[in-house]
Formats: sequence, C-alpha cells, structure tokens
Amino acid sequence: MSTYWDFAKEENMSLFTDLYELTMCASYFDNNKLAPATFDLFIRRLPENRSYFLFAGLEQVLLFLENVKFTEKHLAYLQKQGFSKQFLDYLRNFKFTGEVWAIPEGTVAFPCEPLIRVTAPIIEAQLIETFLLNTVNLQTTIATKASRVVTAAKGKAIIEFGLRREHGIDAGMKVARSSYIAGCQGTSNVLAGLVYGIPVFGTMAHSYVMSFEKEIDAFRAFARTFPNKSTLLIDTYDELAGAEKAIIVAKELEKTGHKLDGVRLDSGNLTETSKKIRALLDTNGLRNVKIFASGDLDEYRIAKLLNQDAAIDAFGVGTKMGTSADRPYVDVIYKLCETASAKGDFTPIMKLSEGKTTLPGRKQVFRHKDKKGFLTKDVIALADEKTEGEPLLVRVMENGKIIRTLPSLNEIRATALENLSKLPQKYKKLTAAPAYPVDLSPALEDLIKRLKQKLTKTEILNSPQ
Amino acid sequence: MSTYWDFAKEENMSLFTDLYELTMCASYFDNNKLAPATFDLFIRRLPENRSYFLFAGLEQVLLFLENVKFTEKHLAYLQKQGFSKQFLDYLRNFKFTGEVWAIPEGTVAFPCEPLIRVTAPIIEAQLIETFLLNTVNLQTTIATKASRVVTAAKGKAIIEFGLRREHGIDAGMKVARSSYIAGCQGTSNVLAGLVYGIPVFGTMAHSYVMSFEKEIDAFRAFARTFPNKSTLLIDTYDELAGAEKAIIVAKELEKTGHKLDGVRLDSGNLTETSKKIRALLDTNGLRNVKIFASGDLDEYRIAKLLNQDAAIDAFGVGTKMGTSADRPYVDVIYKLCETASAKGDFTPIMKLSEGKTTLPGRKQVFRHKDKKGFLTKDVIALADEKTEGEPLLVRVMENGKIIRTLPSLNEIRATALENLSKLPQKYKKLTAAPAYPVDLSPALEDLIKRLKQKLTKTEILNSPQ
Repeated sequence: MSTYWDFAKEENMSLFTDLYELTMCASYFDNNKLAPATFDLFIRRLPENRSYFLFAGLEQVLLFLENVKFTEKHLAYLQKQGFSKQFLDYLRNFKFTGEVWAIPEGTVAFPCEPLIRVTAPIIEAQLIETFLLNTVNLQTTIATKASRVVTAAKGKAIIEFGLRREHGIDAGMKVARSSYIAGCQGTSNVLAGLVYGIPVFGTMAHSYVMSFEKEIDAFRAFARTFPNKSTLLIDTYDELAGAEKAIIVAKELEKTGHKLDGVRLDSGNLTETSKKIRALLDTNGLRNVKIFASGDLDEYRIAKLLNQDAAIDAFGVGTKMGTSADRPYVDVIYKLCETASAKGDFTPIMKLSEGKTTLPGRKQVFRHKDKKGFLTKDVIALADEKTEGEPLLVRVMENGKIIRTLPSLNEIRATALENLSKLPQKYKKLTAAPAYPVDLSPALEDLIKRLKQKLTKTEILNSPQ
Repeated sequence: MSTYWDFAKEENMSLFTDLYELTMCASYFDNNKLAPATFDLFIRRLPENRSYFLFAGLEQVLLFLENVKFTEKHLAYLQKQGFSKQFLDYLRNFKFTGEVWAIPEGTVAFPCEPLIRVTAPIIEAQLIETFLLNTVNLQTTIATKASRVVTAAKGKAIIEFGLRREHGIDAGMKVARSSYIAGCQGTSNVLAGLVYGIPVFGTMAHSYVMSFEKEIDAFRAFARTFPNKSTLLIDTYDELAGAEKAIIVAKELEKTGHKLDGVRLDSGNLTETSKKIRALLDTNGLRNVKIFASGDLDEYRIAKLLNQDAAIDAFGVGTKMGTSADRPYVDVIYKLCETASAKGDFTPIMKLSEGKTTLPGRKQVFRHKDKKGFLTKDVIALADEKTEGEPLLVRVMENGKIIRTLPSLNEIRATALENLSKLPQKYKKLTAAPAYPVDLSPALEDLIKRLKQKLTKTEILNSPQ
C-alpha cells in the first residue's frame, strides 16, 4: 500500500498549484503570449492588532524556483484534464528562467510594499504564483505573530510548543523555522532541530506523572534519567502539593551533586500560583529553580501575566502562536504590474476592482531612517526613480538561478532582531499601534493617475468591441 | 545544495514529535516501565459557533503507525541531544505494536468522546502522540469548518479555493482532502487532484485579464483555448461592463457550437451585482451561463448572500475555510486513561488539573438514534459495559497492523454526508445551536467518583513521601 506521504516529493511541487494557473498558462501558450511580465508579491493590508509584518519564507521560494519541473506522471494527469499536447510538450521542458528581486528574510515590512518581484516570460511568472503565496503567507504570518509574542515577553525566553496543533507536517516545520527567526529561543519539534539546527526543548506531560502510582515517584524517575536537566510538571493534581514534591526531589538531586532545572505550570491562575511557588522555592533555598509556564498562551496573555508580576522565567507558547489563532493568514497577493510587447517594451498596468486596486509598474521600496538607525518612513517608488532612502529589494535570482549565498537561519534571525530593534517602540504596541508611514513617490502617484484615466476610458466608458 | 524539502520523507516522521515525548520515553525505558497503557484522543470542548465535529485524519494516522521507525541519522541526532546508548538501541528497533480503536472517518462527533483509543506498551503509545494530534487536529478542524460552509450553501456547489493561504504544503493537501470529505465538490489544488482523485476546478485570475490590452481580448483568448469550459472573470475593471463583454463572447461561442460555462465575481457587493448580471444574462438568452462567486467567503457570508437571494450558482471558498479562520484549531488532546502493572492488570486513571480533568478507563461511545435514524444522544461508557446504542469505536489496528481495508476517499465522503444528513437540523445552525446531549454511563460516573476520592486522598491531602 502506498502511504499518504507519497505526494511529498520535491518534483511534485509543480502541481502544488491552483488549476487556474495552468488554464491561464495554457491559454497564454495557445494565444502565443510568451513575452515577459512583472508580478509583485505583497500584502494588501494589516490584520487587526498588527502594525507591521516580519517577512519570512524567501529561502523556500527560491529553492522552489530553481527546482520546479513537470514529470511524465504530471503530464499524464494534465492530459486527462484536457490540456493540449502542444502545451504539455511546453511543460515537459518547463524551467523557471526569470529574474527575482526580494527584500531579505527577516525584514520588517508594511502593506502594499513589494516583498518579492518576479520578471519572467508570463507563463513562468504566472505558474509559480500559488507556491509563492502559500510559502510566504504561512511563514510571514507566523514570524509576525511570534515577534509579537517575543515582544510581549520582554526578554524572557519563548519556546515554540505548538507542533500538535500546527497545520500538518510542513507547517510544523515552517512554524518552528519562522518563530525562531522572530526571536523564539527554540522549539519542541525534534525534526526542526535536526533539519534546521534550532535548539529543542521538552519536559514531561501529565500522562507521564499519571503513569506512576505517586506523583513523587514520577519526579524521582525523571530526575534519575535526566539528573542535569529536569523540569518537573507540577500541576497534574494540585500545583502547590506538586511543588512541595518537586522541592523534595530537588534536595535529593543536590545530595548527589545535581540541580533541578525548573518546574512547569500548565493550568490554573498562573500569576497567583507562580508567585506562591516562587516563594516556596526561595524559602527552600532553591532560587535557581526556574518557573516555566505554558497553556493557552499568546502575546496578550503574556503581557498581562508580566504586568501582574507573575513569577515566570520562561514561556512555552503553542497553538495560538503556531496557528496565529487570532488571524491565521495575511492578505498576501501576487499581482501583475507590467507586461511587455513581443519586442520587449514594458508597459505598466493596474487593476481597478473595488477595494482591490494595485500599484502599477516595476517598483522599489526606499526606507528612511533617523540618525540612530530607527525607521522613520518608507516610500514606494518606481524602480528606476532616483529618490532618498535605502532600497530594500535586492536582486536574488537571475536567469532562474540564485545569485547570492542564502543566509543561514541564524543570519536571518539576526536580521529580524536587528530590524525589530530599529522599529520604534510605538509600532510594537500589541493593540492600537499607530500606522507606520508608507508614501508613494510623486512619479508613482502620477503614473497611477494617468493609468486610471486611461482604464476608465478604454475599459468602462467605451462600448465593448 | 540540498533543498528545503529533504525533511519530507516518510521515515522522518518519527522525529516529527515534541521532544518531551522522547524524554518521557527515555525515562520510562530507564525506569523499566514497559507495560501497556491506554490513551484516548479526544477534543475537550466545542469552539464558539461549533456544535459538532466532523472527524477526519484517521487514514494518515494508521499509515504513520504502520511505518514509523528511527534511522541512523535520527539516532545520531538524538545521541547529540544526550539520550543514552541503551535507549537509542531500543529506538533502533522501534516498531509500533499496539491496538487501535477509532470512530470511522467522516463520523460526526462531540466533545470528550474518544475518537481514537490506543493500547500499547507505554513507550510506543506515548511516542506517537504528537503526530496523531497534528494530523487529527488539522483535518477535523477543516472538515468541521467545511461542513458548515456546505450547510450554508444549501445545495449549491462549494469549491475549495484556499491553497494559496493554507498553512504550507501538507496543509494544502489535507485541506483539499478534508473539505472534500465534508461535501465540497472539488478543489483548485491540482496535486490533490492527482494524489486523491478529487475533481479540480479553475478559471482565470485578474492578471490574465490585465495582461491583454482589452478585457474582451482576454475573454476571447480564453474561450479559444477552452471553448467548452470557460468561466470568465468579469470584475477586473467593472463588473457590468465585464458582463457585457462576456455576453458578446458567449454569443460568439454559440456561433461555433460551444457554450460559455459561467462568469465569476470576486469583489464588490455580490448580492446586488449577481442579480444585475443574472438579469443581463437572462435578457440575452443566456440562462445556462452560471454565476460563480468568490472572494473572502465563509459560511456566515454565504448564508447572508443566500438570504438576500443573491443570484449565485456556486461558490469558491478560500482562505477562511482553508485556515478555519475564525478558529484555526480544535482542542484535541491525547490522554492516558489506564495503565497496566508488569503482570498486565489494567488500572483506570485520571487527571484533576483545574479545568482539565479527564475520563478514566477504557471507553466506548454509544450512539442513540430515533426510528428515522436521526441522532438523539450519545453515551460515553466503559468499553466492557453492556448498554444501549450503536458502538462507534471500531478496532482498526492489531499488533501494529491495519486490520481493515481502508475506505476510499469517496466512501469516507459518503459516511460524512450520511452522518451530517442524520444530524438534526437544529444542531447544524451556524450560531447558537443547542448542545447535543452526551451522557456518561452510570458505571463511568461511578468510577470517576471513586478515583476522585482516591486521588484527593493520596496525592493532595497526604504529606508527600
């Protein structure tokens, strides 16, 4: 019997796409539309309570673009779906040959700013849309959410604990990756430890405690196996009674030259209980034993706990961060902004649908900073415009090949932490943060005005012909 | 360069786990705790606005259990994490050898009902926890959400369109699968078409229209490529002007013996616009041309559109269904309910943490129905109890081997549709549905009472020893 995981092969990623990408491409092919075009990948608007995005997912995008191809198995399936032999022959030799500009992973970004800009023959640029959106959506959603959790924790450690409720296997991996980029100290996901080198953390579950006749037997057994790194879960029955037993085990460990690492709380009133347990530990000379808290945490709850001076040293944050539960997606889109004639002359274009207009032309984002390096405003401009500020989009792919060494995960994390540290505090408020200023350059404004007039004239007012 | 997808190999799934599963198991091993135990996988409570769950994900669980193993690469990584040589030797030969009972995929279920029950040597039963939760959480969350969308559509077709914002690759596949189980007619995900045989659907994007100088040129080009199955997206510039052009193309198609399938709206006031466009199409003798709507849809919005008599024939539902945006997870957990002595005598156990108590013992769920087959109530009982109703949990795995032919996807879908059709209407209300009655059997109630007394006495009131 073949197992469910057979689809998970790299070469299958070409069919990991919305059918309409293929129908459009078939029609481009059929109508001999092979000239290049430029698409922008950007996020239309901020979700409630978010005031910036932390961009993540570029590495997976670039590796996909370098490797995407169609196998005979794919082509046989597409033939059954009614695609023409000519188009299938085209797909048989399909390779992405375009140019890609992108902002570095770990960069703080804002609505409507191009995050990735793709220029390629229109069939190539179109076919890759779904994969790019899928990858950037998940990682940017999670990196943004996790950065808020890290901000709320004010320097206390956050461990990503959400694997059991993240959306499947790939999400489990990418959530570990993007929350680490955002400043988490590690993950519970062992495979993410192996694949990405992210530090892994774990203690014990209630079932472990329950499998022993007495709670203290469980604590002693665990301490025997991990005398140098035990964190004991003390709330299976009653937290204070559990803490007393942990103290006994801590003292037993001391007699053999070891130290108890910590205790974990996973339920109840964390503020009150953590204070009582801190007092109990301190009275017993166990100031070094840390209190680790978990259970339904997110940035809002952590901020509240720390406001109430909860005696918590580190947080395990699971489902609500790993699914970005209050907003499990960003409005990321991929829009055509210029097309070329057969001769290769590019023309900027835009869309007018209600509430869904797009910015025309090939663009660049310029970031303005104050003398201390803090972000002051961004300007979206035409790519060839001379304007102030630091350009954010960098050329990362040429002729379908990655042209820069991809940064390591730790380098990306350093970029993210540097970016977040230079984002003024007011924009990091968890709720009701002000809007960061993003302007359009005069030349871009002017282009929009001209195109709107032209579109209204040719597409709406004129009778159709 | 190795690509991001290298982790996605079936044998890696053993490390797709929370580290604490491995630390607990190492300690079980170290303390010679090898006797069997039973765990229940269940959902603690209903999310807001949900009144039932549609269970999905069992097939992937069973295939995982039959295949899970540790490779030398895994063991080398675990050795670096400090696990003992003896434990690694145990893992080298690890196989899941347990017994599994489960309710069939596509069954309607309620809080606290065991969905999967695992009895195995405690290390085996514990090690598999994370994968089981991850798989059932995603698919049950999505199947439940999608069933609500299908209910709201009152028989009109729903196509799953969310691939671009679903959480990564595995989610893209499992969302297509579980929303199809729940009654969607198909998906935009081509790979899900290939792998699962789900019907695939797709039209065109705004970028396609924008890539042509005139909107009508785009429509004509698409109709040329797909004369028998074109759905034209008419809101790139102005929906009514777009509709007029679609009508021209429909008439051109008719002249060559073809028919336009439909038009698609993706923005604006869908009720008002769809009515105007329906009238326009009908006036032009195009009653067969369907109106397809998409754009930020979910069950609430579809219900509202149909209440307002929107002239929509089918819906493409994306992000909000594909991420279950109003609640992107269920509170699914995996809890120890009995342990065995070395001699093999089982003892029921339970947990008392505040708000997190569990049901002890090996259990079965009995479903009561009225004469017409409609669900009336469920009773959670001890597995060996004689009681009325139809037992829902079925033995699906023995000695680590699947003992029943796995149902096909269409069979699972038929189970789901049958289950949903027998769930009384009042429980399918999108908001404020009444609670479906789930009772505990007298013997289970009695067991809980006895265990609570015992636990309070031994674990909380007594001084620790």
